Amino acid sequence: MTPDEFRKAGHRLIDWIADYRATVASRPVMARAEPGEIKAKLPASPPQAAESFEAIMDDVDRIVMPGITTWQHPRFFGYFPSNGLLASVLGDYLSTGLGVIGLTWQSSPALTEVEEVTTDWMRQMLGLSDAWSGVINDTASTGSLVALLCARERATDYSLARGGLQAEPQPLVVYTSAHSHSSVEKAALLAGFGKAHVRIVPHDTEFAMRPESLDAMIADDLAAGRRPCAVVATTGTTTCTALDPLEAIARVAKNRNLWMHVDAAMAGSAMILPECRWMWAGVEEADSLIVNPHKWLGAVFDCSVYFVRDAEHLVRVMSTTPSYLKTAADGRVKNYRDWGLPLGRRFRALKLWFLIREQGVAGLQARIRRDLANAKWLEEQVAATPGWRVVAPVRLQTVCVRHEPAGLTGEALDRYTLEWAARLNQSGEAYVTPALLDGRWMVRVSIGAELTERMHLEQLWSLMQQDAVR
Amino acid sequence: MTPDEFRKAGHRLIDWIADYRATVASRPVMARAEPGEIKAKLPASPPQAAESFEAIMDDVDRIVMPGITTWQHPRFFGYFPSNGLLASVLGDYLSTGLGVIGLTWQSSPALTEVEEVTTDWMRQMLGLSDAWSGVINDTASTGSLVALLCARERATDYSLARGGLQAEPQPLVVYTSAHSHSSVEKAALLAGFGKAHVRIVPHDTEFAMRPESLDAMIADDLAAGRRPCAVVATTGTTTCTALDPLEAIARVAKNRNLWMHVDAAMAGSAMILPECRWMWAGVEEADSLIVNPHKWLGAVFDCSVYFVRDAEHLVRVMSTTPSYLKTAADGRVKNYRDWGLPLGRRFRALKLWFLIREQGVAGLQARIRRDLANAKWLEEQVAATPGWRVVAPVRLQTVCVRHEPAGLTGEALDRYTLEWAARLNQSGEAYVTPALLDGRWMVRVSIGAELTERMHLEQLWSLMQQDAVR
Repeated sequence: MTPDEFRKAGHRLIDWIADYRATVASRPVMARAEPGEIKAKLPASPPQAAESFEAIMDDVDRIVMPGITTWQHPRFFGYFPSNGLLASVLGDYLSTGLGVIGLTWQSSPALTEVEEVTTDWMRQMLGLSDAWSGVINDTASTGSLVALLCARERATDYSLARGGLQAEPQPLVVYTSAHSHSSVEKAALLAGFGKAHVRIVPHDTEFAMRPESLDAMIADDLAAGRRPCAVVATTGTTTCTALDPLEAIARVAKNRNLWMHVDAAMAGSAMILPECRWMWAGVEEADSLIVNPHKWLGAVFDCSVYFVRDAEHLVRVMSTTPSYLKTAADGRVKNYRDWGLPLGRRFRALKLWFLIREQGVAGLQARIRRDLANAKWLEEQVAATPGWRVVAPVRLQTVCVRHEPAGLTGEALDRYTLEWAARLNQSGEAYVTPALLDGRWMVRVSIGAELTERMHLEQLWSLMQQDAVR
Repeated sequence: MTPDEFRKAGHRLIDWIADYRATVASRPVMARAEPGEIKAKLPASPPQAAESFEAIMDDVDRIVMPGITTWQHPRFFGYFPSNGLLASVLGDYLSTGLGVIGLTWQSSPALTEVEEVTTDWMRQMLGLSDAWSGVINDTASTGSLVALLCARERATDYSLARGGLQAEPQPLVVYTSAHSHSSVEKAALLAGFGKAHVRIVPHDTEFAMRPESLDAMIADDLAAGRRPCAVVATTGTTTCTALDPLEAIARVAKNRNLWMHVDAAMAGSAMILPECRWMWAGVEEADSLIVNPHKWLGAVFDCSVYFVRDAEHLVRVMSTTPSYLKTAADGRVKNYRDWGLPLGRRFRALKLWFLIREQGVAGLQARIRRDLANAKWLEEQVAATPGWRVVAPVRLQTVCVRHEPAGLTGEALDRYTLEWAARLNQSGEAYVTPALLDGRWMVRVSIGAELTERMHLEQLWSLMQQDAVR
């Protein structure tokens, strides 16, 4: 494809995306495809000869689109908001079109320096001190793994340079709550700690970690000859946006010499509002912190910012310097390859830079405030309606609800909950995510799509009441 | 930004990229920015109020572009070819514009199923048997880490579900050569093996791993009570595209019960040519394999395919199933989150699907053949010129050269080599990567940019002779 052919095809693609975005509200939210349906429509073997761009786009319309769940739909209340605001989309288009790769600073200086500046903008927007430095990862899964690897290496005085974790005399232990994200346990297992050394600290009635239980578990492990290594706390848990008490946890971590990692992947976006920052009071005492602008803030996926206090330690854990990556600029510049797992890096900062500039901090704040108010509104409706219950405190944009018809309990209630949620999702009118809370299924309504206004909440609430009829 | 504003701004961006791509040959190859220069031009704090798209694009032109190294330049011979062919760029634009995320199959069925089909197309193009299944990662760094984690867990019968690597009685050992990519050692260290348990197997005069040395080192480790765990072999090493003998290594791996991982990140693209497949004879005996379509093949970064034989084992190592990710389709579909590190996944298959369709297999093959012939041509010129030497066999598209003026040896020769390479790079006329080979600096000419024709090799060869004047 020549640049001129690209110009023509690109204009067509831009129009296609503009049309898609303009019509999201009229599409089914959850894709209706059956398992295997899309695969069956695609040729089993690659084409030998070139095909036209038109033929490819025809297949996009005919085959791909029926398998697309509409994440930008104003009645998308599943998982978490990930809007991909259009300014951010254009920032990513610039990155992709330039096709540069960050291997070293020299391999594209702007890739590194715009990332330095933009992550520092994020730091300021979040009200964090300048003790923090940021780097962009793909996801919080990756960031949590990086954090636990750094914790492991600090606790072992860089065992990786010697016999590794496998040569350590006493096992290291990681602490988190049952409400931390699934990627936290996954990271601990991949980092080699083992499930037997991942402690699930009990939580209180608001689903927040109990710092006194944390301290007691640490004492037990120390008494048994094990080495407490890290605690992962969450600001805004996945299931119900619970808030682990960071200040109290930080005191324990400091006393006990643990690495403290804070996962604020989703809720971190709300910390651009000064009135929300009480939720993560104590965050300054952490060693590492994750905020995902690709969630509620509106950057298009993937864009997860990892903030670190001791960047030198991070670099020592992650760095490699083969001869083919040495350049004359080393020592005077950041080489972000030494700040995370992958060597090659996209120019991800552009999508965040475009987003912040096109929206302005004030614009981003206004949208987050709207969503918080919408969540409060829904909470009030549910709480005021007989048979319905809000099953977790609404701190942010997630409302956890259950319809509890008289006489329905236990597994029968679970089946009922899953059934009405499935009916709602299959209708294509709205999309919610059921999840377990204290062993019982409930329905998460995760608010924050760019297009979601009060009207859409009203529609959702009406749909919920229709589908949950018994 | 509304869809209509996006339409307008998007057309402008498409034109901007088309103009950029049409003029790459007239730009400096290596960015001329000084360390800190770009950063200094950007505001230290984020804007409170929204800015116009025009203002952002003005800053792109004025501030960002001087810091962009032109990876698509026809005289880009640095690192590795990573062209980002424009059809692939459009595939990625579609992915970004749709803004869908793969968390579960249900969260966008097409994201999963197009990836299944497209990675299977890649498998067929590479001449691999249908015992392999593919999944797209960001980079080979990530894939190598996944491979070594899978090796670790197979050797320990899933220690992650028990006490982890740290509870294992005998240390596990990983084997590779000094010429494997830096990310292999990094992966071994992050996986917890420790540097003391990473063996560097000696190589022969063509920089390929010696299987008999591998076997002897394994015997030594067994005798010392250690457990040989994995061997990482490379088809087309980074420095000089050396070819580790996979068949012989596979025999050792099989006898000794080691996981065998093959890194063909760069050279794998050439395996779409039947005449090149002798280079990785024995690959079918490996447990895991990486080929990066984002290198020579032309997919825009990032797109690294990880092929695995025992997908069930991979899923067992990587899977997490919190309640909020359970869906009714589980068990009937692939959930790719359980095939790698991150939970959230972009619709990366689109950029590969667009590339293969728009080029056709025959088109991709023709370009790779052109590049192989260009490398041969340069090899012949260098070999035939007094004072110049080809310092490694030219198997693929990388030509490793040194100018050795009479009387210049040792560190003086190193200084001279680095100086003329720096002069060449600073001229902006071409870009090469110096690297160490057998302890001496030489210059890698990595051929394969989409626009690189014989003429550009002639120009490079002339520039090299001008800059290396003594």
